[in-house]
Amino acid sequence: MTIKEKIEQANQKAVSELIDANPVWVDILPAGEVIDGLEPNMILHSGPPIEFKDMVPLHKRGMISGALYEGLAKTEAEAIAKLENGEIKVSSALDHNTVGAGTGIITSSIAMMVVENKKTGVRAATFPAEGPFQGGLCGWGLYTEEIAANLRYMRDELFPVMRELIHKRGGLAIKPILAEGMQMGDENHTRQSAADYIFNTQILPDLFRMDIDKATLMKVMDYIVQTPRFFHCYGQGASMSALLSAKGTPYSTMTVAFGGNGVEFGIKIAGMGDEWFTAPAMMMKGRYTSSKFSEKDQLPWIGDSCVVECAGLGGIAAAASPIVCNLRGMKLKDAIALSREMQEISISSNHNYPIPNLDFDFLPSGIDIRKAIKTGISPEIHGGMFNHEGGLIGAGSARIPMQCFEKALKAFAAKYRE
Amino acid sequence: MTIKEKIEQANQKAVSELIDANPVWVDILPAGEVIDGLEPNMILHSGPPIEFKDMVPLHKRGMISGALYEGLAKTEAEAIAKLENGEIKVSSALDHNTVGAGTGIITSSIAMMVVENKKTGVRAATFPAEGPFQGGLCGWGLYTEEIAANLRYMRDELFPVMRELIHKRGGLAIKPILAEGMQMGDENHTRQSAADYIFNTQILPDLFRMDIDKATLMKVMDYIVQTPRFFHCYGQGASMSALLSAKGTPYSTMTVAFGGNGVEFGIKIAGMGDEWFTAPAMMMKGRYTSSKFSEKDQLPWIGDSCVVECAGLGGIAAAASPIVCNLRGMKLKDAIALSREMQEISISSNHNYPIPNLDFDFLPSGIDIRKAIKTGISPEIHGGMFNHEGGLIGAGSARIPMQCFEKALKAFAAKYRE
Repeated sequence: MTIKEKIEQANQKAVSELIDANPVWVDILPAGEVIDGLEPNMILHSGPPIEFKDMVPLHKRGMISGALYEGLAKTEAEAIAKLENGEIKVSSALDHNTVGAGTGIITSSIAMMVVENKKTGVRAATFPAEGPFQGGLCGWGLYTEEIAANLRYMRDELFPVMRELIHKRGGLAIKPILAEGMQMGDENHTRQSAADYIFNTQILPDLFRMDIDKATLMKVMDYIVQTPRFFHCYGQGASMSALLSAKGTPYSTMTVAFGGNGVEFGIKIAGMGDEWFTAPAMMMKGRYTSSKFSEKDQLPWIGDSCVVECAGLGGIAAAASPIVCNLRGMKLKDAIALSREMQEISISSNHNYPIPNLDFDFLPSGIDIRKAIKTGISPEIHGGMFNHEGGLIGAGSARIPMQCFEKALKAFAAKYRE
Repeated sequence: MTIKEKIEQANQKAVSELIDANPVWVDILPAGEVIDGLEPNMILHSGPPIEFKDMVPLHKRGMISGALYEGLAKTEAEAIAKLENGEIKVSSALDHNTVGAGTGIITSSIAMMVVENKKTGVRAATFPAEGPFQGGLCGWGLYTEEIAANLRYMRDELFPVMRELIHKRGGLAIKPILAEGMQMGDENHTRQSAADYIFNTQILPDLFRMDIDKATLMKVMDYIVQTPRFFHCYGQGASMSALLSAKGTPYSTMTVAFGGNGVEFGIKIAGMGDEWFTAPAMMMKGRYTSSKFSEKDQLPWIGDSCVVECAGLGGIAAAASPIVCNLRGMKLKDAIALSREMQEISISSNHNYPIPNLDFDFLPSGIDIRKAIKTGISPEIHGGMFNHEGGLIGAGSARIPMQCFEKALKAFAAKYRE
């Protein structure tokens, strides 16, 4: 076989891991029990690896908050000292079997939703939605004692009930919900409105059948029903468990991770294990939540939720969601054109996702760095805009820097040259 | 004012009743208590008025079944005799403030959902979904003792709980659900998948907060969650309560009722009160539920659910639902073109329904018979195909016969000629 044939074959194998994945929400567990290599004195962050000293203030503060939350330090000063001298370790979430929200701060005692890819047995932990809580969100890079208390409340009061529910239910299949939502205007990154409703209709009846006092059930119900974008974390977990199954496929040039840390944006490809290929993090174009915000308030790309893009949702699925694209100034025809364009750099298409607005053509699946470089087309991915001070200030999109693909291909060539 | 100016003004007034309607589900009541003019010895049917002897077998059987259900006769023979001699009266549902399902058989003790248009106080009764019951449905023209028992079960066990729920809740606003569903692939006639999910998310929490034994609550929950197209009746009730508010607007040439009885299809227009303008009922083009069915099995148009079309949902809203249109062999562009075409014969557009696939243009609202005649464009409406023997055998669409509009305009001219 020529190297080209080997790559083609490897890419078919890798993309089949995306297409045939069967992600099921199976459990809720402390991060330390489900995330491989997450040590008690370790704090995870979004995007490619970065040292504490080089982090943007948002990540630095997340690290300090995580250290305090976990009891790894008693004061901010102590936390900073330990983060600087390595007593507290920092690590990229995407170098483990997990994916965070926004800043991606994950510590060992945080309760995580566990998604298992039943095809391969690979598990991914995904940071849960933080409820209708109005005090700001940890996932968005904010932190107060109130936010910490809310995280503890979720872990200690809400999740034991949900854990029993999901055990009794024998899991919840995520792909059918993503697929149905994708026919109802969700691209399953910025928008999962349909998925939220479908989830409610599937879960609430089981919740109410539980033999638990009514007041407790009502609390759990309120958390589920009132939390915006509740289902988002499941789409992330599903994507991550599929991508992890494809990761490490020798000779494959398919992307298996996207993420930003506010300084750099990075990708991984299936044939290169956990090696990152990075470029300066890009800025988003899009809409701000308030007229008081403008580009100067926007942090360069931070967050790992774009793993869903890598797995074929989000911007790749633009045609499924003209309502999201419209928020970015796109017309229906632009949304359709974007998904068609993404097909040009994809290895295959995903028969699980036939899209009404594509006349039931399937969504593209599996981005091939070779095709991106050859065509000059980079994936356009959706994301949330973060303020330098933390908090979500808008939603937008950006093209992944071509430099990431070029670096990846160069390293790939060096490794696989025969 | 010229007559043309009077008509324009009247049409603006009439269409504003459609656009500004505020339909709210407020109650569940026996048909006899909420439907004006429904006498104890009267049975309603779908479509324009028709005598018992001229009815299609499906309607005849519905009448006989209704008579037996209501205790108006003890045997089929007695029922037939009384239906023929007028002891049991027959009347068109659309000549009352109600709308049925399919055959439109409504008798005085049947429990009906009550939708009140809060703008005008006009109430419309709408025949409820018959549950996940597998034995066939009364609304689809089937009837057995089992079906009757299911209707009694709904009335006596399920509905008292739902009635208490909706009273405690102070009603459920229907328009926001229609509007949100219309942005999620529903055209709200053939498809209301999103509306069903939204309804569940709004109603289930209230249901579970009720202070009623759990077993009863679970039964009601199963009925709501497991019934396909549960929300359909609310869209019909909402449409009817809006159309009734527009009916009787002097000088208006806007349509306010569509319906078929399997023999004739008829329309009403706002300026002509309850006068019907009919043509031979049309056949649908579409898809059958089984390859064993073909056009010969299809009854000409029967049913009143197309009141939703008259109010601007369904085929008029095709662009909102390429998934429904695809079932009929249409591409996305055809669905969009259909809604754009319907705009040409409409008086206005409805700002409550901005549609992603129309780049957030609004749906057309208020069909003007003058525009239909002038352009030669007839409304294309969605509907369910019925078998001669009863039962739904497919879904399709048809153009309303132009003859209906021509007859209406002729009568209008005779009445309003100055």
